[in-house]
Amino acid sequence: MIYLDNAATTLRKPPEVIQAVVNAMNQMGNSARGTHDEALAASRIIYETRELLSDLFGCPRPDHVIFTSNSTEALNTAIYGMISQGDHVISTDMEHNSVLRPLYRLEREREVSLSFVPADEGGTICYEEFERQITPRTRAIVCTHGSNLTGNLVDLVRVGEIAKKHKLLFIVDASQTAGVFPIDMEKMHIDVLCFTGHKSLFGPQGTGGMCVRPGLDIVPLKVGGSGVRTYEKIHPKELPVGLEAGTLNGHGIAGLGAGVRFIKDTGMEMIRRHEEKLARVFYEEVCQIPGIQVYGDFQADCRAPIVALNLKDYDSSEVSDELAQGYSIATRPGAHCAPRMHQALGTVEQGAVRFSFSWFNTIEEVHTAIRAMKELSQ
Amino acid sequence: MIYLDNAATTLRKPPEVIQAVVNAMNQMGNSARGTHDEALAASRIIYETRELLSDLFGCPRPDHVIFTSNSTEALNTAIYGMISQGDHVISTDMEHNSVLRPLYRLEREREVSLSFVPADEGGTICYEEFERQITPRTRAIVCTHGSNLTGNLVDLVRVGEIAKKHKLLFIVDASQTAGVFPIDMEKMHIDVLCFTGHKSLFGPQGTGGMCVRPGLDIVPLKVGGSGVRTYEKIHPKELPVGLEAGTLNGHGIAGLGAGVRFIKDTGMEMIRRHEEKLARVFYEEVCQIPGIQVYGDFQADCRAPIVALNLKDYDSSEVSDELAQGYSIATRPGAHCAPRMHQALGTVEQGAVRFSFSWFNTIEEVHTAIRAMKELSQ
Repeated sequence: MIYLDNAATTLRKPPEVIQAVVNAMNQMGNSARGTHDEALAASRIIYETRELLSDLFGCPRPDHVIFTSNSTEALNTAIYGMISQGDHVISTDMEHNSVLRPLYRLEREREVSLSFVPADEGGTICYEEFERQITPRTRAIVCTHGSNLTGNLVDLVRVGEIAKKHKLLFIVDASQTAGVFPIDMEKMHIDVLCFTGHKSLFGPQGTGGMCVRPGLDIVPLKVGGSGVRTYEKIHPKELPVGLEAGTLNGHGIAGLGAGVRFIKDTGMEMIRRHEEKLARVFYEEVCQIPGIQVYGDFQADCRAPIVALNLKDYDSSEVSDELAQGYSIATRPGAHCAPRMHQALGTVEQGAVRFSFSWFNTIEEVHTAIRAMKELSQ
Repeated sequence: MIYLDNAATTLRKPPEVIQAVVNAMNQMGNSARGTHDEALAASRIIYETRELLSDLFGCPRPDHVIFTSNSTEALNTAIYGMISQGDHVISTDMEHNSVLRPLYRLEREREVSLSFVPADEGGTICYEEFERQITPRTRAIVCTHGSNLTGNLVDLVRVGEIAKKHKLLFIVDASQTAGVFPIDMEKMHIDVLCFTGHKSLFGPQGTGGMCVRPGLDIVPLKVGGSGVRTYEKIHPKELPVGLEAGTLNGHGIAGLGAGVRFIKDTGMEMIRRHEEKLARVFYEEVCQIPGIQVYGDFQADCRAPIVALNLKDYDSSEVSDELAQGYSIATRPGAHCAPRMHQALGTVEQGAVRFSFSWFNTIEEVHTAIRAMKELSQ
């Protein structure tokens, strides 16, 4: 099987990630719930993972790395926790439903008004639009770092400058980029960086989180046991516990830490170059196949290792099924939880077949996929 | 090391649980996000775990078993998702902060009024109080199945009858009992059963969930990617996806499924008898040691395998540290996220040393713990 659905989840994990989970399941107690060795071991491993992530993302404090079950939870927490009644929020057409649906919900429930920086038919946005859409009630820019459909990136330095200049909150969805592209919260003026663990960070499913700029006040999504201040009716505010009610996914977090270590040991740039090369080789070949239309901007200097395409007017599911059954190649068809992006690209009906690459893919696999697409096109 | 902190998390898992997680990490794609073999494998394993849990808890439909990251998230979802402005809710003094703090939050934010069935100094409640506290605005009873501090159980059949009679929602926190004590949602008239995976279900941390009676309408805590109905602004309502935004913890859920299978294969009654015996032997011996006070009702026919105690007026943390360092026995001291229970028992200052037993503990370990307490008391 050739797994090219890494934008959904990286199926192949470094062996040390699996080993870290196994070790945790053999020896980890409940963190912050006792002082015996096993509870302390859990607390230590979890704290080390916070340190690794804060270092990776330029988060000023390890204790401001919050763990959630996925980036959706992180985005819901950040969006509901900071956007108030009547606020205006600027987002983009490139967003995933994990950004869009929480925003639409606030539109209904808190009279929040929304503006979307439009994407053109190549899937790219015009940065001037961010400033043009600012109103006196604008409270935040919520924006992805990379489209899960086209792989096009957003220049976070540029958007961060705008957010800073206009004193707007800047909430970033790094689901598709964390672990592959450099992110520096301070340099990019990011207030909350939301990430998932199970994609390019090579962690287990059930991991993810958010890095929070010190000084921000985020209303928690959920409250409960905190291990500290048991007698207070209000869940404690200090981070990380303030946004982490209940028992953490310690076993998963141990694996996530091993994933981040793997990235640091291998070198993020090395990983990125390999993935970019695979995507580039694939793109260069398939875009020449008659009847294939590739979506997104491939002139960009830098893009996530994703190639979305369609073959003539075949339904994308049909093509993807054919790839799976005829060639043992795993891709993802259909709509990709990115409704505005499909609208911009004109692929609402057809969907798109997404090929997404990871460190563990080989150039041989890419050539097999190219051959498969050539055959299918005939 | 003798691990007697199983009420916090079961450290020792059946080997097949770890193996299931490893297998999942080696072969599982993202469930409901594609149709290739790996995505389908994920969907299948997750669905099988829903079936196992629905069967275990008497949940009428497997697709009404919702996965969350822990029971705290399940309780927050059920409580915020069903209790409205101005409602009255009945709960008990036996609750964990995972029940109390969401309720206190609604007291502040939705003018919800709360009544608590009081616990006496033995930690038990009077069932007549439930009916006495009902008002015309009472909407729900939210109640634990077993105290995490004393191990005393609540008779869910009895409380369920009251809830049914008065047409109240019945939300149950089964964190301490799921996997050890029979639970039948239908027989007990439970509307939402909240459970954690990493305790007596032997699953990995990061797992848990809620079983929802068909026909209930629960407002989701978070919304986002659903894998279906991409173009709708509102997160789809149908279960399970309606309450499961974003990528599930597939790896953890695979382990949870193996945990439930282990329980079914071993026999829940067999497990319960073993744990009850360990707790009973421990209790019978330690309650005779001069200077030791044990909390809770040990006349009860049936109780969770927990023994909480104090030694003279020593701080519970001191005793627990001594057990950890001098005897390699892991227990949990302090407050146990159960403030009202500590108030009822009169242990707010001192906390309590909690010994909690699991299937993987042996009678020899119990005797070692008894000897340790005897020595410490001298």
